[in-house]
Amino acid sequence: MNIKLYALTGTDRNRPFSPHVWKVKLALAHKGLPYEVEAVGFTQIPKLEGGATKTVPVLRDGERLVIDSFAIALHLDEAYPDRPSLFKGEAGRALARFVEAWSQTTLHPAVTRIALLDIHDMLDAEDRRYFRESREARFGMPLETVAAARADEIRTFAGKLEPLRHMLKVQPFIGGDAPLFADYIVFGALQWLRITSRADVLAADDPVSLWFERCLDLHGGVGRSVRAA
Amino acid sequence: MNIKLYALTGTDRNRPFSPHVWKVKLALAHKGLPYEVEAVGFTQIPKLEGGATKTVPVLRDGERLVIDSFAIALHLDEAYPDRPSLFKGEAGRALARFVEAWSQTTLHPAVTRIALLDIHDMLDAEDRRYFRESREARFGMPLETVAAARADEIRTFAGKLEPLRHMLKVQPFIGGDAPLFADYIVFGALQWLRITSRADVLAADDPVSLWFERCLDLHGGVGRSVRAA
Repeated sequence: MNIKLYALTGTDRNRPFSPHVWKVKLALAHKGLPYEVEAVGFTQIPKLEGGATKTVPVLRDGERLVIDSFAIALHLDEAYPDRPSLFKGEAGRALARFVEAWSQTTLHPAVTRIALLDIHDMLDAEDRRYFRESREARFGMPLETVAAARADEIRTFAGKLEPLRHMLKVQPFIGGDAPLFADYIVFGALQWLRITSRADVLAADDPVSLWFERCLDLHGGVGRSVRAA
Repeated sequence: MNIKLYALTGTDRNRPFSPHVWKVKLALAHKGLPYEVEAVGFTQIPKLEGGATKTVPVLRDGERLVIDSFAIALHLDEAYPDRPSLFKGEAGRALARFVEAWSQTTLHPAVTRIALLDIHDMLDAEDRRYFRESREARFGMPLETVAAARADEIRTFAGKLEPLRHMLKVQPFIGGDAPLFADYIVFGALQWLRITSRADVLAADDPVSLWFERCLDLHGGVGRSVRAA
C-alpha cells in the first residue's frame, strides 16, 4: 500500500473529524484506491514529513507529498486517470471551486461555532492547550464566548443550506445523477458536525438530510465507519 | 435569422432587465449566434406563442420553442455543438445547477427587495397594475412594505457574495480561466440590479465588482449595451 493519509483526531485515534480529511476519504473511496491512515493530533501536524505542513490532510503517494484537500483530489484524478473521475473535466474542476468557496464561507464558520467546545473536549491535554490558544487568538475572545453563538447557529444552520436544498429539486447529487468531489466538499462539512457535535440542525425529512444519508451510504458506507457523536 | 428571444422590458423597450433574459443574452453571445429580440411587457407574456408560457425568457429557434433560461442554455449547447460550449460537459452542467440554486436563493430575493419599486416605476400603466397585484399577493403585503427592507438589503448585499469573492482568489471566472454559463447565471442577477436600481451595493475595488466588469466586457461588451440605471 503506497498511499498514506494523515488524519486529524482527538484522543480517540479512530475518530477522524476534520472536514478536509473527510473530503479526501470519500475521494479515495470514489477512486477505489486502498490507503492507510495515520491518525495525528493537532500538535503533531507540524512534525509530520519533515515539517512539510501546518494543516491536514496531507497525502503521501509514493514519492509525492500533497497538501490541501482540493490539491489532493486534483492529484488523484491526474495520477489515476483510469479510475472514476472526481471532477469529470475542466468545467467540473472550476465549478467545484465555487462549491468549495460556498462551503468554506457559509458552512464552516457555522460548524466552528456549533462544535467548538465539543472539539476541544475531544482532544488530548496538549492539543487542548494548543487549540484553545490558537482559536482564542484567531477569534480574539475566549472559546466560551465564541460558543455563546451556538444556539443561534444551530437555529439558522438549515437556512444556510437552502442553495443545496433548492438544487436537489432537479438532481440527486451536486455532481448530477452521481456524486463528484463537489458533493464530498459539502459532505465533509456536515460529517465534521456529525462526528463532533450532537447538535440537531436538520429535520430527518429535509432534502439535505436525505442527500447526506445518501453520501453516508456511498462506497460501502465509508462515511458511517465513524459513528455520530 | 432564425433565433428570436422574447425579453421583458418596461416602458423603454430597449432596456431588458430580467436576470434570466440576461443569462440567455450572454449565452447567445458566447455561442456567437445572431438573434433578434422581441421586447414584451409583463402582461404580454401570456399572449406570446399561443399562450406557451407565463415567464420569460422564451426562445424560438426555428421550429423549437424553449422556455426557461437553463433549458435554453442546454438547448443551445445541444443544437450548436460546434460553437463554444456553455457547460463543457456533464459535470459542468450539473454543477451549474448548484450555482443557479445559490443565485436564485441568495441573490434574487435581495435584488427583488432592493429594486422592487424601481422596477414598478419602469413599467407601463397596465404592467404596473399587474406587477403590484401579483407581487403583493406573493409577499402578502404592499410593495412599499416589502421595500422597507431596502436599506438593510443594500447593506448586507456584499456579504452574500462572499462565496464568489472567496472563489475569485483562485480563478478569474466561475468557469475557470474563461467564463461559462455559470458565470452568466450570477451575472444576470447583478445586471438586473445594475439596470433597474441605482443602489450602490459593492465597492469598485471589490473582487466581485472586478469580475462583474470583466463580464460586462465579454463578447464585445453586450452587457454594456444597456446603460446602468
